[in-house]
Order: sequence, then C-alpha cells, then structure tokens
Amino acid sequence: MPARLPSDRVAHHFSPIDEEVAKLLELKVQLGGDESRHQFTLKTAKETLTGKYGEDSKLIYDLKDQGGELLSLRYDLTVPFARYLAMNKVTNIKRYHIAKVYRRDNPAMTRGRYREFYQCDFDIAGQYDPMIPDAECLKIVHEILSELELGDFRIKVNDRRILDGMFAVCGVPDDKFRTICSTVDKLDKMSWEDVRSEMVKEKGLSEEAADQIGQYVSLQGGMDLAERLLQDAKMSQSKQACAGLTDMKQLFSYLQLFQVTDKVVFDLSLARGLDYYTGVIYEAILTQTGPVPVAAAQNGAGEKAEEGVSVGSVAGGGRYDGLVGMFDPKGRKVPCVGVSIGIERVFSIMEQKAEASAEKVRTTETQVMVASAQKNLLEERLRLTAELWNAGIKAEVMYKKNPKLLSQLQHCEDSGIPLVAILGEQELKDGVVKLRTVHSREEIDVSRAKLVEEIKRRTLDV
Amino acid sequence: MPARLPSDRVAHHFSPIDEEVAKLLELKVQLGGDESRHQFTLKTAKETLTGKYGEDSKLIYDLKDQGGELLSLRYDLTVPFARYLAMNKVTNIKRYHIAKVYRRDNPAMTRGRYREFYQCDFDIAGQYDPMIPDAECLKIVHEILSELELGDFRIKVNDRRILDGMFAVCGVPDDKFRTICSTVDKLDKMSWEDVRSEMVKEKGLSEEAADQIGQYVSLQGGMDLAERLLQDAKMSQSKQACAGLTDMKQLFSYLQLFQVTDKVVFDLSLARGLDYYTGVIYEAILTQTGPVPVAAAQNGAGEKAEEGVSVGSVAGGGRYDGLVGMFDPKGRKVPCVGVSIGIERVFSIMEQKAEASAEKVRTTETQVMVASAQKNLLEERLRLTAELWNAGIKAEVMYKKNPKLLSQLQHCEDSGIPLVAILGEQELKDGVVKLRTVHSREEIDVSRAKLVEEIKRRTLDV
Repeated sequence: MPARLPSDRVAHHFSPIDEEVAKLLELKVQLGGDESRHQFTLKTAKETLTGKYGEDSKLIYDLKDQGGELLSLRYDLTVPFARYLAMNKVTNIKRYHIAKVYRRDNPAMTRGRYREFYQCDFDIAGQYDPMIPDAECLKIVHEILSELELGDFRIKVNDRRILDGMFAVCGVPDDKFRTICSTVDKLDKMSWEDVRSEMVKEKGLSEEAADQIGQYVSLQGGMDLAERLLQDAKMSQSKQACAGLTDMKQLFSYLQLFQVTDKVVFDLSLARGLDYYTGVIYEAILTQTGPVPVAAAQNGAGEKAEEGVSVGSVAGGGRYDGLVGMFDPKGRKVPCVGVSIGIERVFSIMEQKAEASAEKVRTTETQVMVASAQKNLLEERLRLTAELWNAGIKAEVMYKKNPKLLSQLQHCEDSGIPLVAILGEQELKDGVVKLRTVHSREEIDVSRAKLVEEIKRRTLDV
Repeated sequence: MPARLPSDRVAHHFSPIDEEVAKLLELKVQLGGDESRHQFTLKTAKETLTGKYGEDSKLIYDLKDQGGELLSLRYDLTVPFARYLAMNKVTNIKRYHIAKVYRRDNPAMTRGRYREFYQCDFDIAGQYDPMIPDAECLKIVHEILSELELGDFRIKVNDRRILDGMFAVCGVPDDKFRTICSTVDKLDKMSWEDVRSEMVKEKGLSEEAADQIGQYVSLQGGMDLAERLLQDAKMSQSKQACAGLTDMKQLFSYLQLFQVTDKVVFDLSLARGLDYYTGVIYEAILTQTGPVPVAAAQNGAGEKAEEGVSVGSVAGGGRYDGLVGMFDPKGRKVPCVGVSIGIERVFSIMEQKAEASAEKVRTTETQVMVASAQKNLLEERLRLTAELWNAGIKAEVMYKKNPKLLSQLQHCEDSGIPLVAILGEQELKDGVVKLRTVHSREEIDVSRAKLVEEIKRRTLDV
C-alpha cells in the first residue's frame, strides 16, 4: 500500500460550483494570462502576506531559511504524536486528532489531489496485554464505516511479523525484505504475474522464492487461517511469524466478542509500506461495485487512484511500538496502535450521496430568521433577535434596513432555516409575532412571551 | 495596539506538570547537553520526519526552496479568509474559524510565547447597511466574555476614519499618519509624556500637533461623545472623521438594542496597528484588578505582556473593506468586518480559574468503566463493553487481562468517570451487573437488560 492516505482532497470548502470555478482558474493559470497569474496561484505565496500587517510584517514566518535549520511541514499525524509522547514523557493515552498534513506532491486539482489536506487519526498508546487496544481500533473502524452507510466494506488485516517471517522462510535475503514488501503491496492493482516479474526481473529474487511467496499471499481467511499457518511446516520455522500468528488468533477472538468478524479478513497480501509498523497492520476498503461516483473513484488512495481502480481505501493503520523510542534520548519505548480515517474521501462520498438523493442539505444551524413585512422595522428586528440570542435560540436577521419580505423568505428556503418570526406594525401593537413554518408556509400568531418556548418546541428535532 | 493577538500560547496541550517539564527541558537545551540537544528542539526539524516513511519520504514537504517560490506560513486567519472569498467569488458569508497561525518571533516558553498558536476568528462579509454586522460582532464578543465569566471587561471602540481625520485636523502630514498611529497605539503602556516625546523627538512631529492629538486621545465616552465631536469646530472639518463619527452614533444605537453598551466605550486612543483596517476597530480587555494569575498576565497581548501590565487584551478586530479586492484581479471589493478571540489566553485564564477552585475537572467524557473484581473475566468485560458501545454509551475497559479492582476504581476517581459496571462470577450467573457510583461508592445490582437505560438515566446531567 502506498503510505499516503486516501484523504488528499479538500472537499468540504468547495461546493461543486466552486470546484468548477477552481478548475477553470487553474486552466487559466496554465494558459498564461499574465494579469491574473499572481492572483490565482493556489499556494500561499509570500506575496499574499506582504503589505497587510504594517510594522508587524517582520513576524511573517518565511520558510526559505531558518538560520540554517532544515524545516519541513507535517507529513502525517502519527510521527508528531509519537514525538509529543516522548517529549512529555506520556506513557499512556488514547486520543483522536483531526488536522492538516502536507505532501510535496504534484497537485492535481481535477483529480482532487492537493498538497494540503486533512487527516483524522485515533491512537492508543501504552503497555497493555496483547491485541486488546488493537481490537478496539478495528471495532472503531467497523463502527464508523457502518454508521456512515458508505456501502459494503472489508477490513484487511495482516502483521508485519508474519510478512517478515514469510519472506524469511521463502528465502528472501534480509536486505531485500523492504523492497519485496513494496512489490507485494502492489497486488491490489497488478496481477500476480506482473508482481512476480517485478520481484524476479527488477529486484533479483529467485524464481523459487517468488513462487513460494505467491502461494502464501493468495491466502485469505480468519482465525482458522492463523491456526492452519501455525501448523504450516515452513511458516512455523519462523519465530517471528509464529508470534504474529498467535497474536492474530487472539485478535480474532476479541473481534468475535466485538461482533465485527463479518467484515474483517486476515489477508497475507496486505503489506502497508510505512517503515514504522512493527505488528498488526490493517486497511479498510469499500467494496461496493455499484455506480461509484467519478470524483470519489479518482480521488485519494495514492497511486491506486491514478490507475483508475474504482474501489478504494478509506482507513488504514497498525501497530508501531518503536516510534516513540526514536524520540526519547534513552530510547524508552511506548507501544502504540492507531488508525487513520480517510476523512476527506469519506466526506466526498457522503457529499456525492447527498447530491444523488433528493434530500436538501441544510447549510446552517439557524433555527429562526427574524423578518419584517414592512419598512422601518430594523430596530424592532434587532431587538427581537437579541432577545432570542439571549434565550439561546440560533437566530439570524438580514443586515439591511428594509429588506423585502420575499428575499427574507427566499433566504430561508435556500439555506434550510425552518422558521421565520415576522414582525409588523400590527404584531407589535398586539404584542405578538407571526411565526411561519417555511416548508408548509403555515403562519400563526404567537405571543411575545411564549415565542422562545414555541421556537424551541418546534425545532427540537430539526 | 500591536497586531499580534493575545493568543500566542499553546496552553491546552500542556498540563501544569507538562509545562514544568517543558521549561526544564528548554533550560537543559540552553545549558548545552549535547546528547539531548537534537531530541528536544521544539521545532519540527526535518530530521524528525526522515527515516519513518519508507519510499514515500520523497513527499515530505521541505521548506527550503520550492522551485524558486518564496513561501511563508499563515500569519493570521483574516488574510487567508479574504483570499478565499476572492478566489471563489464569494460575495457574502458569515463564518467562524479556529486554526493555527505562525509568527517568526523569539519563542519564550517560560512566558508562554510560541511560534505556533491558535486563533479563533468570526467574520461577516457582504455589502450591507452600515454598522449592522459590526454591531453583531461586538454583541458576540460581549456574549463570549460574559458567558465565560472571565471577570469584568471593557470593549474599546474607535474608527480608522476618525483617527485619520483627527491626524489631518491636528496637522500631521499625510505620510506620517501610520507611524504616528503606531505611537498612539502605545498609550496603554506608556504615559502621555513619553508618547508625546516619541512623536516629537523620534518622529519629527510639531509640538502643536502633538498637543492637539493629546487632547483628543484622552477622550472616552459613548454616543454622546460621537455627537459632541461632530460639533467640534476642528474635527468637523474632516469629511472622513464625520463619516466615522456618524457611523459611530449609528453603531451605539444598535448596541443599545443589543443591550451591550454597559461594556462598550468609544475611546479615541484605540489605534490598532494593522494596515488593512478601513473603518470601525475594537479591542476587548479584562479589567479585573484582583489577583491576576502570573502565567495569564505574562502571556499574550504582544509587547504589552513583556512590560508586565497585568490587564490584557482578549479580543480584537475591525472592518477591512479593501482586503478582498486586493486578491481579485478586477479589484472587486467585498466589505468585511470581523473579530479575533484570544482563545489561548481565554483558555489559560479558565484553566487558572479551574485550578484555583476546588472543583475537579473531568479529563474524559467516559460515562462508565466496565470492570471486574475477579480474574479471567476479560472476555466478559469486552463483551459488555461492546454491548454498551453499540447502545451509544461512552464506555471504557482496562486493556489488561486481569487488572486489580482497586486500580480500575482508582482510574475512575482520577479521570472523573462517574460510574463503574462491575462483573463477577455471581453477577454473570444472576444476569446482573453491579453498578457503582464512584463519588458515593454506592453499589446496586442492575439487570443486564436494564443496564443501558440505567446508565443513561444516571449520566443525563453529567
């Protein structure tokens, strides 16, 4: 698997129209058009910042050179997490973190690939009994993918120790483990023949070793497969493989208690590429073969996306017991296991689903718009708005002295505001407000004293 | 006012103990100690990232040189917001944004000054009738500071046009407006004599002009002051000042409707330093003279903090009608007004308050810990935990095969988990769970079928 997560798309800032605009602007930049070139570069170039901050401009953080230090932007959330634990001597913690990371990749806006994108990580750090936190990570992935209703999915599981043990018993030289692992990682987008050919011709592996690997990496199963491999004449010769397989059995027993074995499969071809994994590794993929939205299919999942494979990885992770120790001066280890959710990919799929369905998506949490049908009632509108704000109601008012009633109602329709509190001379005289339900257009008079209660009652489930 | 917000402190990641550790580590680095120097540098140096990502290391975003482009890190959230509006041709929007910004300042950990810190911005963009969105921004500042109970506060308000008009009628040459403005900005930490001396001796202003400015900047008031200045023989000669003063009157009329005039003061000495402000400017300060926590007093509020002034700015902002146009190739303007909350400063004060009070702060949202009093019940604990998770209960279980009951209970005490569901052989036989309330130590047997309901009932208000 490529290390980059399938989340390299900043989708939630952009409506489809905005996306089209952005594409056109990118095209314009490519075509030249000197006048606008600097205006529409998509990176935060230094010139964006200059001339805005007066005397404080000296504090702008230039990146060219920091007194000889070589700096880089955060690549993922795992390494900074490990560094944080080591620096603060945290020996156990469970936390999630949603934040931006950066890749010096070629941005491809039309394929939704950016240099800046969000990741969403969950990790459990601490010295615990084997496979209990690992099982919780898988339970969480199962829960997220089930609840979000993204379609059917599978969670592939393997173990770095099983892979290494397998390579050893198949006769792969020690110094070729990593590079052969990278080739195995391509099995979900290349045929076995091509993978075998790369191993033998490009990486110099013997044909016998390659064929033995081929037999193992075709295996998929559950606890039964782990048991079978523990009895396997060759595999059982590797201490490492046995340790991995024993833990795999244990993991499946916990997954049974968590009732998630329907989606989890022990798959010997799973081989995530990151150096820091030391034990269990896993990856969740959507398996729906139905009409996969184009944008979703093209985005994320690293190189796989470029190959046009339509199913995609939406989560991945594993155990990294050595990483914290790399940041501790005395090398003290804090075992960790974690998962990264491809949050931008997930959002993109959910947006596509919402668009495909007829349901209107609300773009605001506003419960009520304070409106007026007549002129010169701005002050009364502001007074009522403040009353509602002070009572904890999410209220909005148009920032115009005399807006048309129609445009006030239209705004509610467009943004999904469910109620309108309408003020007029008569209502003010009578001490009431006309409360309008946007979708039914029904209107009733509510006394000013009961308005808050009535709005709360009507928006309880909205 | 200095442009840097009072929020330059990353406090919420660090408990007081962590802070002490960090201080000691900083000291250690300063003292030399070669062995640990690279381990405890507080910046994300490139070496932190290398050797962790395998073949994907090529994607690490080095900052030294991006093909000749000069890049910088985000300085605040306002300029990126303006650029976003221009790029996406957004002509009206209301939004908040909490994110990190960067300053190439000398970090001073012991004073809580970092190069990376959070800002929290709220902005309203769009062509509207004067002062309505501006009043909403001030209402929001008032609401936040009131609800968080940070102590008494004042919101100073002024207008860039009133300042410029005042400088003009006092005889300040056009090309000295900005630099004199910077000096006026120091009035909250320097005496008038010193400010006057800087204007005259360092900046070459005439004594007469300085003295005239001195008379104006001592003025504070409300709508009455705006009215008086509109009648002022000198001030009324400036069209700019009159426009600002007329809007100021309008602003106060809206603030009266919002019932926030008790805290808002029109103060002619307020002069925020940023170039992009074009109209109303404001700044909120805490005025409590009581025992201000040392860390809070020293942190934030830019240079003022260094001077040891104990009251501090916790929010600031203003109107910037020209900024979006600077990013639009055709210069199309989108008027904006916004506010920045000094979120890290605010958190720091709240943390100090929480520490000073006897109240225990919960460090987790967990409602119930699934525990056992006997050995060999891990599987039963996991099964029950999954049951609770599936029912939407926030449950936790210790990742040990046979944890001691005492350590399970102690963990609940420490982290504020209110309930413990205890399993034992007898309970399993009887189909019940012993539900323990942590603070009262009371225990009752609850049937397995009613457990979810009972936990929900007991944690409704927790």
